[in-house]
Amino acid sequence: MMAVSPDPVAATCPLPLAETERVLLGHGSGGQLMAELLAELGPRMGAPTVEDAALVTTGTPQVVMSTDAFVVTPRFFPGGDIGSLAVHGTVNDLAMRGAAPLALSVAFIVEESLPLDELRRVTSSIARAARACGVPVVTGDTKVVGRGAADGLYVTTTGIGVSLPGAEPSATRGRPGDVVLLSGPIGLHGVTILGTREGLGFDSELVSDCRPLHRLVAAMIAAAGPAVHVLRDPTRGGLASALNELAAASAVGVVVEEDAVPVPAQVAAACDLLGLDPLHVANEGCLVAFVAPDRAEEVLAVMRGLDEGAQATRIGTVVAGHPGRVVMRTLVGSTRVVDMLVGEQLPRIC
Amino acid sequence: MMAVSPDPVAATCPLPLAETERVLLGHGSGGQLMAELLAELGPRMGAPTVEDAALVTTGTPQVVMSTDAFVVTPRFFPGGDIGSLAVHGTVNDLAMRGAAPLALSVAFIVEESLPLDELRRVTSSIARAARACGVPVVTGDTKVVGRGAADGLYVTTTGIGVSLPGAEPSATRGRPGDVVLLSGPIGLHGVTILGTREGLGFDSELVSDCRPLHRLVAAMIAAAGPAVHVLRDPTRGGLASALNELAAASAVGVVVEEDAVPVPAQVAAACDLLGLDPLHVANEGCLVAFVAPDRAEEVLAVMRGLDEGAQATRIGTVVAGHPGRVVMRTLVGSTRVVDMLVGEQLPRIC
Repeated sequence: MMAVSPDPVAATCPLPLAETERVLLGHGSGGQLMAELLAELGPRMGAPTVEDAALVTTGTPQVVMSTDAFVVTPRFFPGGDIGSLAVHGTVNDLAMRGAAPLALSVAFIVEESLPLDELRRVTSSIARAARACGVPVVTGDTKVVGRGAADGLYVTTTGIGVSLPGAEPSATRGRPGDVVLLSGPIGLHGVTILGTREGLGFDSELVSDCRPLHRLVAAMIAAAGPAVHVLRDPTRGGLASALNELAAASAVGVVVEEDAVPVPAQVAAACDLLGLDPLHVANEGCLVAFVAPDRAEEVLAVMRGLDEGAQATRIGTVVAGHPGRVVMRTLVGSTRVVDMLVGEQLPRIC
Repeated sequence: MMAVSPDPVAATCPLPLAETERVLLGHGSGGQLMAELLAELGPRMGAPTVEDAALVTTGTPQVVMSTDAFVVTPRFFPGGDIGSLAVHGTVNDLAMRGAAPLALSVAFIVEESLPLDELRRVTSSIARAARACGVPVVTGDTKVVGRGAADGLYVTTTGIGVSLPGAEPSATRGRPGDVVLLSGPIGLHGVTILGTREGLGFDSELVSDCRPLHRLVAAMIAAAGPAVHVLRDPTRGGLASALNELAAASAVGVVVEEDAVPVPAQVAAACDLLGLDPLHVANEGCLVAFVAPDRAEEVLAVMRGLDEGAQATRIGTVVAGHPGRVVMRTLVGSTRVVDMLVGEQLPRIC
């Protein structure tokens, strides 16, 4: 067997040195560059960075808070739009901390000259999505900037929620032996956005998986409570980045079985064409969970009982070896390290 | 005396008809155009629009939530920067609903190529301001957009807080007979931003009034509880727009004594030069309160005991006549209607 030494330049997607002290698109990727930036900026504000939502002590029940800015382009795409994406994204970040959504705020940054009808459509979409999630929009803000100072419309949603009884999921609670569950197929959101944006004319059946996951989480928590150790929605940076973040936060290793990861045929084909790894492509409607081994089958059965978890499956195991590392066991029996996304693969995916 | 009929064209800052179905800078003014837009969009989302913060029922104490997007230019100005402004603005919106701040979230939208040091400076400023307010930043998000798709950096902060005991301030609780109190001089923020932006070389002593008001509010509520009927910080659109909004929300009239409104000499001079009305210029560190008449002197004394209320003063009275209207009694004894700002006077002031 020939030893292939990886080309370190190609592998790390090098950054021009003169650019390193400026913000790069890759700083927003959800991958490693972003992790480095947040590792610096987060502590500066005293804000923890391993979770997408924070617990806030107000008494009982515990309040959970999460915020997200949405800059997706195009703003309308098969399966959703910037408004429904913003609502679902924030509801999902709350759900990943085991919280039922209680209220949302919405802040618009609008470029002068945006057609008012487009703002109306987005607002109506936010309303529909929020109603379907059973969460009210309670407050908002609108700022208008001059032409050229934004690209149409940006939406920042913040959500508060209350912890579900028995819910203790945290990025730090992964334990060796935990079973890694995935709620559905990966890659649909990222590939749909890219196909729409570039007018690539992919299979017209490609639709974003954008959807709320709080009911799925509520069912999982109701079934297994604190045995649901970790929950994470693999958005920017994809499944690979999410698993790496969780492995690092919990100081455990993760082994994923390649043949167990559901990649839809159209996603695989599009990724082949574009040179993307489906493991790095963003999702907006699936979650990964680390569940105590004695409860995993029960949780899996509950997940499959809901539409949004109908294709839930076991994709791997948490191990004590190689803490902080994610390894994939390939179809041919070899293993390879699954890295975080380094630079930017798909800017403005959400 | 000669009757001067006002020129309706100059008075209403007419909008080109072809533009009316596109977003205009004036839609972000904090004035009438914005009120019209929000009156349409708010109900679409089911969100109330008369307050800058919302009460959320979680049990006791009541949780209050507020969000604001900050797009100020320049990002650094005498008296503050986009980071401290974002923290103070959100803390103040919570305070205006009688809430002590509990937690903040921060979402950045960053333009590719922004110097990283600038992002660090803003982040540190957010941290300092939050610490000084006694409120933690608990969660955040960072999105990067390509060059030309934003103007450097936008910051959206959301705050949650808990209602102070006895606090019931609301835009709808103004009652005839209430005394109108103002916590300090007006116009400093807007004139400072404009002077800095345009390099007009105004009096170098011009400094934004950007500051947190939650301790002032806590002292007022501790002194008079529910007798503090209404609280509002007159930011975008200035004191005139804030009073008009409150008059409309409470279905009362407001009479303001012109000689009682504190306009610093430098603000008056700058407004003269630029053709601005100080009543329409944004503030970031003062509040207006409607207080029951039998408690107003006591509240005023408490306000004057704090730095941020040292120049607090009585500027007018709430009346039953002309509901929804604000009238100013001028120095010469005549009265004039004080309108909301109609178009945009100072875009990107906050």
